[in-house]
Amino acid sequence: MTKKNAFYAQSGGVTAVINASACGLIETARKHKDVIGKVYAGRNGIIGALTEDLIDTSKESARAIAALRHTPSGAFGSCRYKLKSLEEDRAQYERLIEVFKAHNIGYFFYNGGGDSQDTSNKVSQLSKKMGYPIQCIGIPKTVDNDLPVTDNCPGFGSVAKYVAVSIREAGFDVASMAKTSTKVFVMEVMGRHAGWIAAAGGLAAENKGDAPHIIIFPEVAFERKAFMTKVKQSVADYGYCAIVVSEGAHYADGRFLADAGNTDAFGHKQLGGVAPVLAQMIKDETGFKYHWAVADYLQRSARHIASKTDVEQAYAMGKAAVELALAGETAVMPTIIRSSNKPYRWKIGSAKLSRVANVEKMMPKSFISKDGFGITQKCRDYLAPLIKGEDYPPYKDGLPQYVTLKNVAVTKKLTDEFTP
Amino acid sequence: MTKKNAFYAQSGGVTAVINASACGLIETARKHKDVIGKVYAGRNGIIGALTEDLIDTSKESARAIAALRHTPSGAFGSCRYKLKSLEEDRAQYERLIEVFKAHNIGYFFYNGGGDSQDTSNKVSQLSKKMGYPIQCIGIPKTVDNDLPVTDNCPGFGSVAKYVAVSIREAGFDVASMAKTSTKVFVMEVMGRHAGWIAAAGGLAAENKGDAPHIIIFPEVAFERKAFMTKVKQSVADYGYCAIVVSEGAHYADGRFLADAGNTDAFGHKQLGGVAPVLAQMIKDETGFKYHWAVADYLQRSARHIASKTDVEQAYAMGKAAVELALAGETAVMPTIIRSSNKPYRWKIGSAKLSRVANVEKMMPKSFISKDGFGITQKCRDYLAPLIKGEDYPPYKDGLPQYVTLKNVAVTKKLTDEFTP
Repeated sequence: MTKKNAFYAQSGGVTAVINASACGLIETARKHKDVIGKVYAGRNGIIGALTEDLIDTSKESARAIAALRHTPSGAFGSCRYKLKSLEEDRAQYERLIEVFKAHNIGYFFYNGGGDSQDTSNKVSQLSKKMGYPIQCIGIPKTVDNDLPVTDNCPGFGSVAKYVAVSIREAGFDVASMAKTSTKVFVMEVMGRHAGWIAAAGGLAAENKGDAPHIIIFPEVAFERKAFMTKVKQSVADYGYCAIVVSEGAHYADGRFLADAGNTDAFGHKQLGGVAPVLAQMIKDETGFKYHWAVADYLQRSARHIASKTDVEQAYAMGKAAVELALAGETAVMPTIIRSSNKPYRWKIGSAKLSRVANVEKMMPKSFISKDGFGITQKCRDYLAPLIKGEDYPPYKDGLPQYVTLKNVAVTKKLTDEFTP
Repeated sequence: MTKKNAFYAQSGGVTAVINASACGLIETARKHKDVIGKVYAGRNGIIGALTEDLIDTSKESARAIAALRHTPSGAFGSCRYKLKSLEEDRAQYERLIEVFKAHNIGYFFYNGGGDSQDTSNKVSQLSKKMGYPIQCIGIPKTVDNDLPVTDNCPGFGSVAKYVAVSIREAGFDVASMAKTSTKVFVMEVMGRHAGWIAAAGGLAAENKGDAPHIIIFPEVAFERKAFMTKVKQSVADYGYCAIVVSEGAHYADGRFLADAGNTDAFGHKQLGGVAPVLAQMIKDETGFKYHWAVADYLQRSARHIASKTDVEQAYAMGKAAVELALAGETAVMPTIIRSSNKPYRWKIGSAKLSRVANVEKMMPKSFISKDGFGITQKCRDYLAPLIKGEDYPPYKDGLPQYVTLKNVAVTKKLTDEFTP
């Protein structure tokens, strides 16, 4: 094989473990310097490639790269920037390939969700057509767990653990207060279209009466009456009611319970604040005192309570991506294959990007309980292994020690500016 | 000494470590069975004493009591119920003493904030007058750190650690996203009148540019213009702005930034939702995309990231309460005395309840930076030791194992019902 450099970029919302994938990728690439020259990272994701703003990861010490394994967020910067279709904006794709060519890049590693896998796939196709073939490997990442083919997605297990731990703790708190004070607690979690994260809250309820008593999924249209009946029943039976609600909770007509009216760069509605809406709704009907929390970024950046399974899988995906590239593969993404539930065993597979791109994996109906407010045993069996194990970061003076890289820029080679 | 039983109750908002105080108290009392018979706990705090709903803690195994050390919330139930003044409702105080007399209770341990210390003090005074002297020992507890005399207050260190860790993690997250997406992150924390919890967020910022860039204290009147200037400057300098805001943030005229209009049992205004107000304010003026989080109960129940220092001190306060009682003291509260900062050393002292009751300790002015948006080195020196050390609970299948006690009721001895 001719020695080529590699390009790596992080895309979309970051997670507690996307840097663990970067760590696995860079550490593995460094072991194959005969084939992979340098690993260049895109500063702020694919934008860095388009603007030729590359980071030379070879300037980082082995120790700094190792610390990525326990550092949340995207160490090179991520971006919310979706390339248009090939037909609409071929120039952008051609620009990518030009930049890669200029820096002798033969490997394109793109760490992201469904949109990113789509981009990787297109770059692979176009690079062949343009006579500068690039091996394009996607690396799965999304807290939403909504990528298809792979059994689960790195990033999700740690959010799941955070949500399950948090609602258990808050549930204990509310139970203590319920006699004279707070009877209802609402915790809002991420998940616009897929209720995987909310479902994970259900893991905290191991025995009858445990929090959470109600989960609201985006997969189930919200019915106020049924919900209120359930809230009152929970307070009557257990003295309190702990609720986990997806940000994407909506009525049967599609209207979100909380619709802030803003949209992000992908045209998705920017949601937030369903928890206070729900809490007030309960207060108005029952008079119960409430508290509510919105976990927002705290849930996806909570490396301090990351799932060990998740960290290991994230690292393994980065490593596998390099190995797929070394094996001559392109337009593929490493996947997690579950071989058994008890004991939990998994291995690495791979999937064609064309099968992964732009497909959103919903929760199976069989994962949601009949009344629509909880999870089934089947769901529990699926989720439980993903939050297993703790992987604490190192601490100094009471605070986790996360690494900030030097992120040294690679000298530009192209003369023309490009504005994405 | 004549053998008497002890009464223990938890009061007000619970914390990640109030059960560690209960653990220290019960374990120590069990070592002195010649003097202290049984420890009865009030079910739902002082309400349990008034209604003669006592829990026999001797029915709990040594193992269950030991597990209280790592279990958040109030294991016997807490309550928000403030006794009126002696003049206004002498009957309630007399009822307490009657119940204590009926169950041969000679020790009253009350684990709470300023209100609770006041109650303990009054029970002590009245019990003497009524000819049934009871030794009343307060045990400090409040996430707000606003009790006087004691250097700090159990419960605070763990919230402080949660807030500092969380804003560091969220800060890393926002920094990754800022180029094309979220530029401003607002995290709302507890603290109506005292900004101790918000200040703790400042510990996360060790180097220039670190999150949080702005802290909003209830001690400093909010000025929109100065705030906006600071937000814009932070985005200009570092690419993003991470903000920690106290729920009690208010304008110069006293109006809260978020005023939900509800009041709790103590007549305090129920606040919440300053984070979205602030985020929207920024969006309106700058157009910056924002995210916000409201930690609410998650912060005070987060036993999974408790401060080791806090857990040790909470346990020590429970133990010291028993030791003060054994030494014949009454109307006192054990305190934490700081003997040195570096290395951090502390010892146990005691304070008369009359000095502690109903006094709120504000942040010293010297702890807040000149511009009103940050903490000083002095503040950092004070706070840093309090979050030091991790004290992880045991986990099973990815979830922390917290104990739920049997809470067996003591047979009632009084015939009359009492409705508090």
